[in-house]
Amino acid sequence: MQEQCSRIATDRPGVCDTGAVPTQPTRAQARIRQIETIKSTSRRLLAVHGAAGLSLREVAREMGLVSSAIYRYFSTRDELLTALIVDAYNDLGAAAERAVSRCDDDPRVQLHATAVAIRRWAQRHPHEYALIFGSPVPGYEAPQFTIDAATRVTTVLSGIVTSAWRDRSPGASAGTGLGTMLEQANLEAAMPGVPAPTRARALMVWSGIFGLVSFELFGHFRGSVRNASSFFDLAVDELADLVLS
Amino acid sequence: MQEQCSRIATDRPGVCDTGAVPTQPTRAQARIRQIETIKSTSRRLLAVHGAAGLSLREVAREMGLVSSAIYRYFSTRDELLTALIVDAYNDLGAAAERAVSRCDDDPRVQLHATAVAIRRWAQRHPHEYALIFGSPVPGYEAPQFTIDAATRVTTVLSGIVTSAWRDRSPGASAGTGLGTMLEQANLEAAMPGVPAPTRARALMVWSGIFGLVSFELFGHFRGSVRNASSFFDLAVDELADLVLS
Repeated sequence: MQEQCSRIATDRPGVCDTGAVPTQPTRAQARIRQIETIKSTSRRLLAVHGAAGLSLREVAREMGLVSSAIYRYFSTRDELLTALIVDAYNDLGAAAERAVSRCDDDPRVQLHATAVAIRRWAQRHPHEYALIFGSPVPGYEAPQFTIDAATRVTTVLSGIVTSAWRDRSPGASAGTGLGTMLEQANLEAAMPGVPAPTRARALMVWSGIFGLVSFELFGHFRGSVRNASSFFDLAVDELADLVLS
Repeated sequence: MQEQCSRIATDRPGVCDTGAVPTQPTRAQARIRQIETIKSTSRRLLAVHGAAGLSLREVAREMGLVSSAIYRYFSTRDELLTALIVDAYNDLGAAAERAVSRCDDDPRVQLHATAVAIRRWAQRHPHEYALIFGSPVPGYEAPQFTIDAATRVTTVLSGIVTSAWRDRSPGASAGTGLGTMLEQANLEAAMPGVPAPTRARALMVWSGIFGLVSFELFGHFRGSVRNASSFFDLAVDELADLVLS
């Protein structure tokens, strides 16, 4: 009770001003902090060995722990990788959401702001970007529950396209065999009211934006592009035409 | 002796009926063979540990050599990685060149065939694709001379766009600030006679094609695309419009 009270006092001043004694963090809080330290240590190690080289033993050594201590928090290397992947997708998703929330309602402005936010996030977190959009880690298979975090950034992009098409007549759905080519139920749920050919083009645009970011970050534009930021703006504008006009 | 002779006899019947004394492979030939074995062993290990996890020591162990023996062929891990990267780029470049050589002169057909060849090569060599287009290897910097091999596939793509524009009037170069944005001298050399805005779009198309291949190979189209091959055809056709029409 005492402990609860002092915690509440920190959060909400004035509620608990009865001279309560501040206490040590609870066991649960200590666990959360230790997990955060393990994850930040691991993120530093990603920069040194890449995702495939990550090992629980080395993370423990970096933290000055015995190996057995780290297994209380992550029982396998894959569990740790999954936690890092989910964090990275959530962080990227939040960056995209913030970018759109700061824009007015113009879908073109929103799409541009989202693409720029993706590029900036990648530049600030190159090793986490490589973790989620670079080479797969041999032997690692992301569990199903990572999808929610992974979908956040594409939900932002889908939302922009959907809002752009909200007040237009859907037009004739071209008979291009898209029905069997794509997972139409999922895409209809993600972009309700958007014509099927535009939904197909939206997938191109997602991979196009990440293709540009990866090419730049991984060095494939060296010798061709001098001002990467201006080139990105131009390219995103061309991509936007595919889904907004 | 008998064995050598019969081997030669098998390769070129009639050459070896004069009692000529066949020889052991020369020192240079033996060296080339050993290098090939080291590289093929390394390619197998890429699939297990990823590029960042490759070590000369482990390659030697896999081949049943003492560590010191491998240093006669590659003095560092980076030297071995460079050899694998150059091979991968050359192999991909050759696949693209073959694809175009089998087509008639229609640039759209050629661009499609090249894109399909890139996708197929990536599917057949996923770990080598990840080595050259996936996450950079921490601490590794590709030396300048890898550029020739790396440029082969883009030279094919540039050639297709150049031939498409050969007989057209260049049109007014739009004042979009492309001059300072791109390395115009390099792009003019790669795509002579192609208007500057189209050259800029060509860079988008390259990254777009590899963006599609990476998204598919690295699992990002799961849940959206059912028939990846048909979707790729459709998407490449949209990309082709950006540089050919």
